[in-house]
Amino acid sequence: MVQEAKIAAGVNPYIPLKSLGMTLSGGEQEEAIGKLIQQLKERFPKLSENYCITTDAIGGISTATDMGGIVLISGTGSNCKLVNPDGSVVGCGGWGHLIGDEGSAYWMSHLAIKTVYDSIDNFKHTPFNICLVEEAMYNYFQVSNRMALLTHLYRTFEKSKIAGFCRRLAEGAAAGDHLSCHIFRSAGQELARHVVAVLPHADKRLLEGELGLPIVCVGSVWNSWNFLRDGFMEVLKEARQKPMGRNLYKFTMMKLKYSSALGAASLGARHIGHNLPMNYAENVDIFFQHYFSL
Amino acid sequence: MVQEAKIAAGVNPYIPLKSLGMTLSGGEQEEAIGKLIQQLKERFPKLSENYCITTDAIGGISTATDMGGIVLISGTGSNCKLVNPDGSVVGCGGWGHLIGDEGSAYWMSHLAIKTVYDSIDNFKHTPFNICLVEEAMYNYFQVSNRMALLTHLYRTFEKSKIAGFCRRLAEGAAAGDHLSCHIFRSAGQELARHVVAVLPHADKRLLEGELGLPIVCVGSVWNSWNFLRDGFMEVLKEARQKPMGRNLYKFTMMKLKYSSALGAASLGARHIGHNLPMNYAENVDIFFQHYFSL
Repeated sequence: MVQEAKIAAGVNPYIPLKSLGMTLSGGEQEEAIGKLIQQLKERFPKLSENYCITTDAIGGISTATDMGGIVLISGTGSNCKLVNPDGSVVGCGGWGHLIGDEGSAYWMSHLAIKTVYDSIDNFKHTPFNICLVEEAMYNYFQVSNRMALLTHLYRTFEKSKIAGFCRRLAEGAAAGDHLSCHIFRSAGQELARHVVAVLPHADKRLLEGELGLPIVCVGSVWNSWNFLRDGFMEVLKEARQKPMGRNLYKFTMMKLKYSSALGAASLGARHIGHNLPMNYAENVDIFFQHYFSL
Repeated sequence: MVQEAKIAAGVNPYIPLKSLGMTLSGGEQEEAIGKLIQQLKERFPKLSENYCITTDAIGGISTATDMGGIVLISGTGSNCKLVNPDGSVVGCGGWGHLIGDEGSAYWMSHLAIKTVYDSIDNFKHTPFNICLVEEAMYNYFQVSNRMALLTHLYRTFEKSKIAGFCRRLAEGAAAGDHLSCHIFRSAGQELARHVVAVLPHADKRLLEGELGLPIVCVGSVWNSWNFLRDGFMEVLKEARQKPMGRNLYKFTMMKLKYSSALGAASLGARHIGHNLPMNYAENVDIFFQHYFSL
């Protein structure tokens, strides 16, 4: 891919880059990254003179700001990383669909399915009418009853297929279905809980900037911000009442307009003492801002 | 297996049985059972003249009583079936580890693991000290940190391996560890919720017999009844305050002393109008009884 990129950029692929910046999922695993760099140097000696490999979260934040902030991912799965101005990282979540992924598309689909099963079983009560979600579920998975759906949950399990059901929930929420709205609101709460979890580790400078705490939102679930918002705000407002939340005066939610490869490239350059010109404001779309009244 | 059983019983394996009773997991799937019987008749014409195939739950209850009652399974997974005197069955749970299995060994292991991850992440607060469970978890799975444990949860996932961790939790509870005790108490609550879920469907005769509602408990988790009991009782006492629980005067928890094949055999015989002599009281161990004060 790197050689292809060199050719696409019109440079000689046999002249090594000065520095290659890569921000990869799993990039916090130092030992693995050490091996990766060693292999790259041995097997592709003309690729690059220097390497700077770090996490996808730092890639995202470095595209949006040079100060640091929070990266909050909600797509098929979910994850949250706080990146401080000194480059240190504190995470919450990101443990996969069995023990984490709260507030993700998979998590919402799962919650919807579980609510239907438990309600029919008379096992756990839901105050909401389940009919629309139940129908949508049979329809999406092309089955006629709960027993038949089990195949999709076990034998032919595909996380992305289950997560894909979340689109139907978004349609349900848009049509005013109360259970669908409740599920998105719950996801908003869970996503905010990730933020609250890392907040005590945030450097003062992150909280006191012009934008307040920058939250870079990655993943398709953020397209449904309208349905997430109330739950998200509830949890942050509650956290504000507690000691650890008192420093949160303001926050800004934004999406990246460009690939986080941009941040990776700037990190690669900085790694050899060179600052690429970055127009951070141009790289993001701010979609929500909130000041807390004192 | 049937032919081997005939030989072990000293009868001619080439003379068909009058009737074969089998109680199998999945036995409520009429279409599959129809096919199974057809195949047995075609491929093993000397096996049996008649067949009676039903669910494992009915097999369990038929070993303990001829009236019906509740079968409450908690082993690796969990499940609950109410069998009425007329043979009709109402179920709750039994949907597998992704969307059910509440109160099972897998469920407890999962809750313990999740509690540790969330506590370290500062994501969800637990009032209990997690140290003992965290250590036991690393020790049981032979890993040194949370990241390394993920392999056991995903790439090499084995439900029974995860459920096996529950034994360590039972040891923790026995040693007085508060988090372990809390997890068993929660499992007790979940198991009782299964009972409460099917209670509205229970025939009056099931509730008014000498034993009160008979609950046949299957699976190794019941060996830890001491740790489940408080949670179990809490939920049933709460249900007694509500309209649907008002008819529950008394209940009796019992384990089977013999294989539920005994019940299956009696059902097979009854299927052709023959009553096998059954001494139900001899087939069970009663380990708990409770009268509710009026």
